[in-house]
Amino acid sequence: MRLSQVFTKTSKDVPADEAARNAQLLIQAGYVYKDMAGVYSFLPLGLRVLRNIENIVREEMDAIGGQELLMPALQVPERYELTGRWDDKVVDNWFKTKLANGAELGLGFSHEENLSPIVKRFVTTYKDLPIAPYQIQTKFRNELRSKSGLMRGREFLMKDMYSFAISQEQHDEFYAKAQKAYEKVYQRLGIGDRTVMVLASGGSFSKYSHEFQTFSEAGEDLIFKTSDGIYHNREIAPAKVSKGNEPEEFQTCKEVKGEGVIGVQALLEHLDIPIEKSTKTLVYTTDTDETIMAAVRSDYDINELKLCEAVGCASVSFASDETVKTVTGAEIGYAGLANLPDGVRVFLDDSLNGLCNFETGANKTGYHAINANFDRDVTRPDKFYDFKTAREGDLDPQTSEPMEVKKAIEVGNIFSLGTKFSEPFEVAVPNEQGQVITLVMGCYGIGVSRLMGTIAELFNDNKGLIWPEAVAPARVYLARLGDELAVVEQADQLYENLTDKGVEVLYDDRDLRPGQKFADADLLGIPYRVVVSGKTQAAGVYELKARRADQPEQVNENELLKGLGVVA
Amino acid sequence: MRLSQVFTKTSKDVPADEAARNAQLLIQAGYVYKDMAGVYSFLPLGLRVLRNIENIVREEMDAIGGQELLMPALQVPERYELTGRWDDKVVDNWFKTKLANGAELGLGFSHEENLSPIVKRFVTTYKDLPIAPYQIQTKFRNELRSKSGLMRGREFLMKDMYSFAISQEQHDEFYAKAQKAYEKVYQRLGIGDRTVMVLASGGSFSKYSHEFQTFSEAGEDLIFKTSDGIYHNREIAPAKVSKGNEPEEFQTCKEVKGEGVIGVQALLEHLDIPIEKSTKTLVYTTDTDETIMAAVRSDYDINELKLCEAVGCASVSFASDETVKTVTGAEIGYAGLANLPDGVRVFLDDSLNGLCNFETGANKTGYHAINANFDRDVTRPDKFYDFKTAREGDLDPQTSEPMEVKKAIEVGNIFSLGTKFSEPFEVAVPNEQGQVITLVMGCYGIGVSRLMGTIAELFNDNKGLIWPEAVAPARVYLARLGDELAVVEQADQLYENLTDKGVEVLYDDRDLRPGQKFADADLLGIPYRVVVSGKTQAAGVYELKARRADQPEQVNENELLKGLGVVA
Repeated sequence: MRLSQVFTKTSKDVPADEAARNAQLLIQAGYVYKDMAGVYSFLPLGLRVLRNIENIVREEMDAIGGQELLMPALQVPERYELTGRWDDKVVDNWFKTKLANGAELGLGFSHEENLSPIVKRFVTTYKDLPIAPYQIQTKFRNELRSKSGLMRGREFLMKDMYSFAISQEQHDEFYAKAQKAYEKVYQRLGIGDRTVMVLASGGSFSKYSHEFQTFSEAGEDLIFKTSDGIYHNREIAPAKVSKGNEPEEFQTCKEVKGEGVIGVQALLEHLDIPIEKSTKTLVYTTDTDETIMAAVRSDYDINELKLCEAVGCASVSFASDETVKTVTGAEIGYAGLANLPDGVRVFLDDSLNGLCNFETGANKTGYHAINANFDRDVTRPDKFYDFKTAREGDLDPQTSEPMEVKKAIEVGNIFSLGTKFSEPFEVAVPNEQGQVITLVMGCYGIGVSRLMGTIAELFNDNKGLIWPEAVAPARVYLARLGDELAVVEQADQLYENLTDKGVEVLYDDRDLRPGQKFADADLLGIPYRVVVSGKTQAAGVYELKARRADQPEQVNENELLKGLGVVA
Repeated sequence: MRLSQVFTKTSKDVPADEAARNAQLLIQAGYVYKDMAGVYSFLPLGLRVLRNIENIVREEMDAIGGQELLMPALQVPERYELTGRWDDKVVDNWFKTKLANGAELGLGFSHEENLSPIVKRFVTTYKDLPIAPYQIQTKFRNELRSKSGLMRGREFLMKDMYSFAISQEQHDEFYAKAQKAYEKVYQRLGIGDRTVMVLASGGSFSKYSHEFQTFSEAGEDLIFKTSDGIYHNREIAPAKVSKGNEPEEFQTCKEVKGEGVIGVQALLEHLDIPIEKSTKTLVYTTDTDETIMAAVRSDYDINELKLCEAVGCASVSFASDETVKTVTGAEIGYAGLANLPDGVRVFLDDSLNGLCNFETGANKTGYHAINANFDRDVTRPDKFYDFKTAREGDLDPQTSEPMEVKKAIEVGNIFSLGTKFSEPFEVAVPNEQGQVITLVMGCYGIGVSRLMGTIAELFNDNKGLIWPEAVAPARVYLARLGDELAVVEQADQLYENLTDKGVEVLYDDRDLRPGQKFADADLLGIPYRVVVSGKTQAAGVYELKARRADQPEQVNENELLKGLGVVA
């Protein structure tokens, strides 16, 4: 591609309205144009990068038997009412719209409800299974905020695959294949060495899902590695406190007035105690309408996903003010472990295990207890649970060794869906024994445009982007310096030769100064830069520089082709 | 592709909720799945057809210097307010939605407003021009009705290209190139011989646009060919009455009471006259707020586009009841050419030219005039215009020869936009003389999924689809009959051989009866069917049948490869 024929241009100015490095660089290089937060246009060179990523994803899905199709964005409510996902309280990022006749429609954020009836129509026997239809299609998610450039889009390109199996065993087999395919995708994209599979919440579908997370300081996720080598998303990471909870002589427990003292920090100051001596107790209502209490050391937060696991329920939400008053007998703000009410299950996080002389709410309006101790002032529970939100520095509960903690970008996720969707849509066929079995589903997502943002975020320096070869819009940036006929002829010929050999070349045939061309080559992040000029011609050489190299080399034609990987 | 690996299946049942032949066949063959009227999923084999069409379009756009990019569906209102197209009264097929913060967004129906700011950002001099960015992207149009299958989608795949030129001359040159590229597209798709370029309305952009129309009885458009060989969309077709308007002896003009007679038909019966002796007069308000009257013979309708041309205004709408009363001095329903009011311009269609003894409204509540005649009862105008809606059988006004009339499907359109968008977005750069010139734009659309529907609509018989080779999901349908090892081996080998030679093969390796396989081959519409069976093997031949042929031929391997176009 001749750059004189490309209508975009690079820019020196860092866009003022972008905080994310990936978007800044992609905009400066002219790869994308920002239409609004989370919505971008892919300009000609950027579209090439997107297509390269897309094709790698496609090839690996095809390799494990994926069957590509294309489903629409417009979604009818009926299907989502069947699964309970039409409600904006259940799915909080719907974009909704209306037909001319007033009927509501949604814009697809995921396509389980679209695909299930299709599969029901065609699959009639276990012999048809397993199958894994997938698409590479534009998704819409009404994110409240979108500040991470291409890494969190309101409209974005996604590969979503869905598997259907006749048994859990068949499902597990395909799920394992998909894991391997994902690893290959990241390997081919050049991010395999910094991408790991991570345990994450299974949502309402199963205990765990698996995420593929690429380590990056720009990541929105925090990943904890336990001693057994398993990575955990913070949302489900186990955690043990790393300091505090030393045995101490028991002090006298007292109730202290704390009326009008709002917030943990104010309370600590009021009582003159460190945060590690303070506890917080929250009252929740579960999805089965049970009221429970849960307590954690005040320097931790309660992780509701982990709490649900401890309680054995599907979801929890804060109890109403009314319920809190009824349960604790006190106004909001004084719930605690002292003077515990009867008939309410109380769950204690293990951050409280071994704690001495601690503060806790007195369940009495206006009062906190200090120097509380288990057995004497507070009932010691049969069991301590781990439902705190893990923090950097926390220990692996199994080994009491510190966990490795890193920020990461989620670049893929795979879910076992069980029969969550196949049941309402009655996707069921006879198995080998003639029993009608509701199919076991899985879903497998990769954000294609997010991957482009992730790669841009990871591979750059102060001069610009540094694309891995597999995704670069071209392998070679051919800079022609000067317009003497002999130089033009040689550069044109090299361009044609390389193109004929299947090497993608960005040929900078524009009337610009050398410095501008070099700056563009760097900003655009093309893996190799080749210079043809009067000087190189006089010396009978080409100048070759890898994007990551400090200095160019003078090479002859054969060395050039070797250097570019065209000949062995 | 092995059919045993494809999860879709054909169906014998014609879908009950589809009136359009294209959708019926595409659904029965398992190419598409209907999600709702005008919204379809493209299943694996259907997606191949769509991609084949898409690639042909892409190649021809690239060949004339098109630069592919990808713009989003989500659209911000500000840009459309700038051009007046946010208003639902101006663009009546918007899908609109809302951000989580309540701000309105639209779903793109066309992308002039999206692309103009992008081009403004990058193009800085006439040297950058002309350019023609294009995309192949999903469009959303909130059609009130959508009953033509894939030919009228609410969500559909479209190629939209936009050109930017420094002068009208440069624009015209590119526009001509695009015309040629479009012709090539239709030629390659196999519909070139029945596709013509047609003059159509230029909308608010220019006098005419050009449509590419493919003749088909299923078409929604009616095309008129004038004696000079030019095709006209009905919306702008010229027309001259083919019968009536013979000279007659003048009868006595009378005013006849017709109160309570509603509608043309009732009036004709009431007055006992043929429709060709009746006229209708309508009162309009123009976009510049002038009130005008327009009259046509009652067997014709007034074509508002042509009327605007006659009046010299941009748009007309029916005048309010109040205005009609003020202008005619009568209640609604009695406007006519008798007792004409002063100060109102009256336009007469040439269907009235030469008419004798005709009926017209009396501009007097409850009365119609009969046996009216020009000069005597009705003022003869300086000029008769042609603003009737053309009908089958009408004459070419230039030659008085009958026009050829055919139904057709619009498969593309190209528009000269002038500076309609470049002006509000200030897309202007200096020309060679240093003058800042607002760029001249064009737009060029092809409905990619509509083309798939069109081709399906055109090429089929009572056994199913008959894809042209260039768009077929595979060139060969290889039906293996029986599962003896030798047959399986031979069929497998042929499949591999053909695939290696770059021939796409649908290999029917399923455990089905021959009749089912042959029926599928026909319904799917694959250009060539090859049979490998115990019988062919015993005879040392293959059985080859083109989809359009009546009978198969027995051929040897070399003849087979020749027949499939693999060897010369």
